[in-house]
Amino acid sequence: MSAQAQKQAKQNNNKKVRTAVTPTRGEDFPGWYQAVIKAAGMAENSPVRGCMIIKPYGYALWENIQQAFDKIIKDHDVQNAYFPLLIPLSFLSREAEHVEGFAKECAVVTHHRLEKGEEGNLVPSPDAELEEPLVVRPTSETIIGDAMSRWVQSYRDLPLKLNQWCNVMRWEMRTRLFLRTSEFLWQEGHNAFETADEAHIDAMKMVHAYGDFAEDYLALPVLRGEKTEDERFPGAIATYAMEAMMQDGKALQAGTSHNLGQNFSESCGIKFQGRDEKEAHAYTTSWGISTRLIGGMIMTHGDDDGMIMPPKVAPVQVQIIPITKGDDNTDLLEYCFGLREELKERGLRANVDDSDARTPDKMWGAVKKGIPIRVEVGGREMEAGQLTHVRRDIGKDSKETVSREEFLGSVQEILDDIQGNLLNKAREFMMANIKDVDSLSEAQDLYAGGHAGFVRTDVNVLSDPEFEKLKDEFKLTPRVMPFDDKGEKVIIGKAY
Amino acid sequence: MSAQAQKQAKQNNNKKVRTAVTPTRGEDFPGWYQAVIKAAGMAENSPVRGCMIIKPYGYALWENIQQAFDKIIKDHDVQNAYFPLLIPLSFLSREAEHVEGFAKECAVVTHHRLEKGEEGNLVPSPDAELEEPLVVRPTSETIIGDAMSRWVQSYRDLPLKLNQWCNVMRWEMRTRLFLRTSEFLWQEGHNAFETADEAHIDAMKMVHAYGDFAEDYLALPVLRGEKTEDERFPGAIATYAMEAMMQDGKALQAGTSHNLGQNFSESCGIKFQGRDEKEAHAYTTSWGISTRLIGGMIMTHGDDDGMIMPPKVAPVQVQIIPITKGDDNTDLLEYCFGLREELKERGLRANVDDSDARTPDKMWGAVKKGIPIRVEVGGREMEAGQLTHVRRDIGKDSKETVSREEFLGSVQEILDDIQGNLLNKAREFMMANIKDVDSLSEAQDLYAGGHAGFVRTDVNVLSDPEFEKLKDEFKLTPRVMPFDDKGEKVIIGKAY
Repeated sequence: MSAQAQKQAKQNNNKKVRTAVTPTRGEDFPGWYQAVIKAAGMAENSPVRGCMIIKPYGYALWENIQQAFDKIIKDHDVQNAYFPLLIPLSFLSREAEHVEGFAKECAVVTHHRLEKGEEGNLVPSPDAELEEPLVVRPTSETIIGDAMSRWVQSYRDLPLKLNQWCNVMRWEMRTRLFLRTSEFLWQEGHNAFETADEAHIDAMKMVHAYGDFAEDYLALPVLRGEKTEDERFPGAIATYAMEAMMQDGKALQAGTSHNLGQNFSESCGIKFQGRDEKEAHAYTTSWGISTRLIGGMIMTHGDDDGMIMPPKVAPVQVQIIPITKGDDNTDLLEYCFGLREELKERGLRANVDDSDARTPDKMWGAVKKGIPIRVEVGGREMEAGQLTHVRRDIGKDSKETVSREEFLGSVQEILDDIQGNLLNKAREFMMANIKDVDSLSEAQDLYAGGHAGFVRTDVNVLSDPEFEKLKDEFKLTPRVMPFDDKGEKVIIGKAY
Repeated sequence: MSAQAQKQAKQNNNKKVRTAVTPTRGEDFPGWYQAVIKAAGMAENSPVRGCMIIKPYGYALWENIQQAFDKIIKDHDVQNAYFPLLIPLSFLSREAEHVEGFAKECAVVTHHRLEKGEEGNLVPSPDAELEEPLVVRPTSETIIGDAMSRWVQSYRDLPLKLNQWCNVMRWEMRTRLFLRTSEFLWQEGHNAFETADEAHIDAMKMVHAYGDFAEDYLALPVLRGEKTEDERFPGAIATYAMEAMMQDGKALQAGTSHNLGQNFSESCGIKFQGRDEKEAHAYTTSWGISTRLIGGMIMTHGDDDGMIMPPKVAPVQVQIIPITKGDDNTDLLEYCFGLREELKERGLRANVDDSDARTPDKMWGAVKKGIPIRVEVGGREMEAGQLTHVRRDIGKDSKETVSREEFLGSVQEILDDIQGNLLNKAREFMMANIKDVDSLSEAQDLYAGGHAGFVRTDVNVLSDPEFEKLKDEFKLTPRVMPFDDKGEKVIIGKAY
């Protein structure tokens, strides 16, 4: 439990504060996480083992993430395309490390037809067994590499930069909504270059594209750097990552970018005639972010009243709640819908809650969904041309009644301020929970004393036998060697 | 072969016209179709049986289709969500007609892990056989119905309108790019209502949404109507469809909308407490369009020089080709990129071909890709502040040299005119190739005489035993009973 969470837990015990979500973060962080997702209506477990259903509110968030990052992808001159869901087993075997490290826990398709079985139920038809089984893609380096081997003939065909938004599947034993599910949604970029330098620069460029995106859009502060050798993507010569810190002090790998060198181009046969007329293998990279980011946003921004959405990607930025009274609220609703139109004209995502729920339930609904600004309008406010607004990140202390015009004039500024506030708060929390240590015994003392965050120490510890003991004792892993420390330091922590 | 295609074939033979694509439509329509896709770089077959790779240019078209129709979906108050790729076998068995009619040819997942086999290759691990096999979704009525059964409790939860953009899989023996592939991309909408009337109205509304979209965006004229009982979606009480006519006179079912009555709500348990406090089953609909639409656009608009893209969804609307000379073309390229910026500011998708291909190859490249407007700029034009533009739908007769300002002032109008022209041309072709007949023997004579289009006749023929013979002889099927004919007529034709 982090310092902040502990403090909160104590407060709750002392004051018996009623929270919209139970358990609280301090009481049970994983339980709180599930409760937030449920209270906001973002996702749920499906009857299919390990697969989630992304509900409309969660999916709307993913759509906003997609739309914003897709623009960035296209600004990097990457083209979207679509490759097959199923991959022949033989493809996976091509890259030795890839198959060793990673490709084992897969959904395997063995038949292509069903028939009525003896008990009248459906069974895979024995006559329809595939000659070569197929796996549901866990990632697409091999199948995209195969296509690239046909599309690349000359150095003139390079760089070739492709991306797909799709579903992938890795059979997981212990699953958690958004963080670790058998099926998840992601984008996977696959770029091929003429030279090693270009591939290196590209892999670096993409991890920074992720880092900037996480900070600018999701208000997720991240540490950017290189993964240690053991934590590399199987088949990569270098893996770069952005790591975030959750409110329980644990690390979340939020996006990775791999320099694959010539490993995949050799195993997939991506060859080209170079400027020197000699044949050469291309240098490739791959990079991905996924629905996991949503889990990261929840555990970074959420509080004991539920989700807090960063305005830039919030499905709804302003929720308007009419405080209805009596039977006829026509004028009030008209006022609210008019306000919504004016917000929409300013390019904002606004909603009127005209359901027949009770007013307090509507208010708590907006809180639990983490809608950045809640607007309340009663009959008196309407008559005075006013409204009351509350910020989700601050709560009732930010409650203010102003004229409609004043609100419309400042709403974008308020949203920007919330966005910045979320990022700053999360960054301060992360910074406060990264401890610099000079030795492994110092780290040992820290974790034994209940430290829930990261430690930063000299990169040489990676080869120290004592480090293995520390890792085992506290379930730690080397998270990343930050670029800011020029590769001389390593960040260690517990990870999701 | 249609009348138009025959005429074209004759012309080609007489004049030995060189076409950018071989074979021509008249020579070999299916061969031409494949050649157009290849020449435009839209898609290709993958090493995975029956699955296609959608290349960047084809995928950009799909993205434009998605983006435009997604807006329409949201205007219908439908919310996007995401449901699992894999469906338990038992779910498929729930709706009796559904499983009988349709769910047999599926990719079946039986294992969740791979291991090294005796020969060192990967094999499905015998220890990791699933207790219940899963199928890759061929469509999602059952898994979405299962979720709806949890989400719907009261009439207040209705209507519930959901949609997902996803991949689906139906094992196909004979595949054809875009038209019939084992895996394809689509949207599937699933709506639930309180009353039978609402479901009926919704199913009708969505087929008209499809029809309007096909005509307004894709310039595909369609016949809208109800499917005959035999052609219904398995488990539906009514299937509505839009049918298009390809240039070879064959029909393409381009989108369907199903009124499922209470069949799926009963098998999935979508129950609610009604206004009368009694428990009732919901009434559901489902509706889908897919990447098949791209095949329909190619076979409707393409000509013997390749694809013709309707401007509203064209990945590139204006292709600018600098007619370079000598070594230094800096000024010319600057002029072209400046022009592109001005087009972009007007919200248009414009591109400069600054590759090192030869000028004629650039021109033919733009033709084969079906880019609506091609702009050519040489040094002389640049100096005079001019440019030359050509319409893809008309060809060299539309070639015109005008000032840059004049072009910028009229470019949107030209694009609109191309869009309208494509729709009109296709509509005239379809209308000319639908023959009204009063009897089956008249239809018999028509097809025996080489008629390649549709016939329209009295709906009573469906129960005439002679109709079965006609169907068999010419591989015909009843396509649709058009709304315009109030259900009294049926359209018959060969189908893709």
